[in-house]
Amino acid sequence: MKKLILVRHGESQWNKENRFTGWADVPLSEKGENEAREAGRLIKNAGIKIDLAFSSVLKRAIKTQHLLQEEADQMWIPEVHHWRLNERHYGALQGLNKAETAAKYGDEQVHIWRRSFDITPPLLSPDDERCANHESKYAKLDQSLLPLSESLKLTIDRVLPFWHDAIAPALLDDKTVLIVAHGNSLRALIKYLEHISDENIVSLEIPTGIPQVYELNDDLKPVNHYYLK
Amino acid sequence: MKKLILVRHGESQWNKENRFTGWADVPLSEKGENEAREAGRLIKNAGIKIDLAFSSVLKRAIKTQHLLQEEADQMWIPEVHHWRLNERHYGALQGLNKAETAAKYGDEQVHIWRRSFDITPPLLSPDDERCANHESKYAKLDQSLLPLSESLKLTIDRVLPFWHDAIAPALLDDKTVLIVAHGNSLRALIKYLEHISDENIVSLEIPTGIPQVYELNDDLKPVNHYYLK
Repeated sequence: MKKLILVRHGESQWNKENRFTGWADVPLSEKGENEAREAGRLIKNAGIKIDLAFSSVLKRAIKTQHLLQEEADQMWIPEVHHWRLNERHYGALQGLNKAETAAKYGDEQVHIWRRSFDITPPLLSPDDERCANHESKYAKLDQSLLPLSESLKLTIDRVLPFWHDAIAPALLDDKTVLIVAHGNSLRALIKYLEHISDENIVSLEIPTGIPQVYELNDDLKPVNHYYLK
Repeated sequence: MKKLILVRHGESQWNKENRFTGWADVPLSEKGENEAREAGRLIKNAGIKIDLAFSSVLKRAIKTQHLLQEEADQMWIPEVHHWRLNERHYGALQGLNKAETAAKYGDEQVHIWRRSFDITPPLLSPDDERCANHESKYAKLDQSLLPLSESLKLTIDRVLPFWHDAIAPALLDDKTVLIVAHGNSLRALIKYLEHISDENIVSLEIPTGIPQVYELNDDLKPVNHYYLK
């Protein structure tokens, strides 16, 4: 069986402060760092040997990956950080407190932005300092690729090319693959793997810092999946 | 000018205990972790933007690289960990205390092993548990590549193919390159870049955790080099 391990990064500073994060590059909280180490212990105790580790380019995912690998005593494995594994871009909501946003736009509107499949939050203006086109980590990309806001649907459309181009080939090459990413980029992958409907994927909850192992057959169809504990 | 930044990893647990380390995979000491963070601050304060970061596959170099990148706020840059950047392999001396080794073999013999260019310390036996062929990080390499002991000369012969195959092409592609490695793998690179003689390279001392910047011309000849401070 081929093995894919999915990990949602540990708690970030803004998770803790209940702010919309998206592509804002905020660090892990102390609790988040401990969650990452615990994920590494679970992988070590399960005897899993990773061959290749993917993460987004956001530091909360990379730090989770680094601490996990250190704790699993697998620091030397190849690491690939890629923007297509980033969290859903939350547009003009990024940085806002969720309670304040609800007070401003109404609970129902916020619920729609958070829980609809294809409705996009208000766009960031390209000259807004929060916009990705001001960050050196995206400077060498075609700038038309950079979102100003994303629905879950747009997130999936952006994540899947990386599955096909980088992750699936590694699995087909019998590599055990780790992906450390975010709630919505992981939803994108799980929706694809498990053929989950547009209606159901929005309510799939993925816990932070708990490695989820997918066992895949030669066609990369899941035959089993479970959380490590 | 093309830019290459060389960093020797911070103090390891065995540096602290004065033991021969080589390919033994020991962690940084707390002082070593602080040196790594300070190296990151120096790179950030110098305004250097790294495009590509290389390290050995030994955790003291990788941890130095990770802490440096975190402190420089450049965690997202591509990382490549490669065994050819490992420290000189110290053969059967690995793990021994330097004072005990001197008591056993004599000061003069130890001095020869440490400071000659082409004399190799006693070989590890392939069935010695300290031997690299027992470690999963080297399992997919042609096992005949794995040393049982190395002189500085053999270290250089092993490091330079990686310069030619991976590092030089990145520099020629105008990438600013960081290399986090070890006393002897860095000596190998500096000897090559600066045409230092066999006699003189053995006494070149490289401080831990202080980034050394090489400015290179289009033929990758050094035109300037300096430590950050």
